[in-house]
Amino acid sequence: MTELRLGTLRTGGGRTVAVRVDAATAVETGHDDVGDLLRDPAWRALAAAADGRRHVLADLPPTAWAPPVLRPSKIVCVGLNYARHIREMGRELPAHPTLFAKFAEALIGPYDPIVLPAHAADAVDWEGEVAVVVGARARRLDEAAAARAIAGYAVLNDVTMRDYQYRTPQWLQGKTFEATTPFGPWLTVPAEGGDAPSGGPVGELVTAVDGEEVQRTQVADMVFGPAALVAYVSQIVTLNPGDVIATGTPGGVGHARTPARYLRPGQVLTTSVTGLGELRNDVVAEA
Amino acid sequence: MTELRLGTLRTGGGRTVAVRVDAATAVETGHDDVGDLLRDPAWRALAAAADGRRHVLADLPPTAWAPPVLRPSKIVCVGLNYARHIREMGRELPAHPTLFAKFAEALIGPYDPIVLPAHAADAVDWEGEVAVVVGARARRLDEAAAARAIAGYAVLNDVTMRDYQYRTPQWLQGKTFEATTPFGPWLTVPAEGGDAPSGGPVGELVTAVDGEEVQRTQVADMVFGPAALVAYVSQIVTLNPGDVIATGTPGGVGHARTPARYLRPGQVLTTSVTGLGELRNDVVAEA
Repeated sequence: MTELRLGTLRTGGGRTVAVRVDAATAVETGHDDVGDLLRDPAWRALAAAADGRRHVLADLPPTAWAPPVLRPSKIVCVGLNYARHIREMGRELPAHPTLFAKFAEALIGPYDPIVLPAHAADAVDWEGEVAVVVGARARRLDEAAAARAIAGYAVLNDVTMRDYQYRTPQWLQGKTFEATTPFGPWLTVPAEGGDAPSGGPVGELVTAVDGEEVQRTQVADMVFGPAALVAYVSQIVTLNPGDVIATGTPGGVGHARTPARYLRPGQVLTTSVTGLGELRNDVVAEA
Repeated sequence: MTELRLGTLRTGGGRTVAVRVDAATAVETGHDDVGDLLRDPAWRALAAAADGRRHVLADLPPTAWAPPVLRPSKIVCVGLNYARHIREMGRELPAHPTLFAKFAEALIGPYDPIVLPAHAADAVDWEGEVAVVVGARARRLDEAAAARAIAGYAVLNDVTMRDYQYRTPQWLQGKTFEATTPFGPWLTVPAEGGDAPSGGPVGELVTAVDGEEVQRTQVADMVFGPAALVAYVSQIVTLNPGDVIATGTPGGVGHARTPARYLRPGQVLTTSVTGLGELRNDVVAEA
């Protein structure tokens, strides 16, 4: 089968629909979101064959795009995971991935605004990442089986409140602010038999603020690739269809700069990965 | 209204039912679990009035008891939170609670065995805790409103794989091993107008291994009490009905002993809090 792109559209009144994103149209699959679709073991064939209501892509407003998976049962994030950046900082490559969590309420759509919370607006930073989306139950899998449990990839920006992140030794509170993590624009399901499923996407991850590039890396430079991460997490806890692993960010975050740089109202944050699309998010002050 | 106890029973075939736990019987409320019950804003009145099928408590096998909330949308755990223990260690009281996550798959029932995973069996430690269960949507609440959003309290043991916890700077991977966190035996909902809802339960938390006491503390010694924790988390992310906050463990964990002590197959771990009941879990080797 060829590559598929699967997204979730808001259709008004709080309703959403999963769609297959074709060249010019989005075709409804009959599911509420991509998470709901992935819970059907036949999701790939169902999505490929979907022939529901069509939406002309050019007519869709940016606000129509929801996070592809609305409510993953878990989002596992990975700390330092780009080899070149780790070596630049004079550190050894880690033996194990650093894992932390984000709750589903943090997610926003690929073109939604990032609203800086009034009480946590001073040190909001970008972290462009590749997101792995799980397509089958994964429990104690080896790397080959883990690769087969991956549905595909999307772009995610693990927007982080650095002040909250470093208030205490554990990062969670700076990582899970409500409605601050753009995710999408859709799930890209690699062609079967292609190179991508086990090794993950190829190409570059680029983050920019108002068009100024702030992060650029080869995605293949990950220390722990997608299949290795799914295998590792699956030794600890079951991954379910729709669960997300955010695979870590490369160098170039604002907090590590001198002077530090953070997101400010009026800016536009873009995050893109070759072949996976681009997130584009206005940064706005809380009303 | 008087105090209520709300539990979840396994009734065979993978089905579960929420029950009001009376003196000698458990009365079905018509919900799948306590989480499902709590999603109805009228949960308290519904539970008090429930008059469904009755189960004689004395006839229930220990395996009948499930975690009261089967799948919380989030479990937020708190690090160091007992003042006396922090001072004993020569530290200052923290200005902010240390928060980390646990995924719902970690939960087991109050009398289920703790199966030591073959690949992570060597440094499994106890952490007796009071669990706060949320009873209403909580978003940016002050402490008084947060107190009203608490449904009640239960006992939880944040069983921890110390080797995985300290593999990396972030604790998540040692904290969320599948089916290792006993929770229950039921949710105790304080009497309305009583002292407990805002201040949390009173009395003592006691953890024992094979009957030997290893942790004992006054629950009131928490640095950040239940309402303060709900208020704090609600500034960051929405808490939903059924969500759980594990409020931290006092001194006496096995890892901090000389020599260190960990759970071994054949032992029995008990965790109790005055007024909330007792967890009793056999520690077993993986088959």
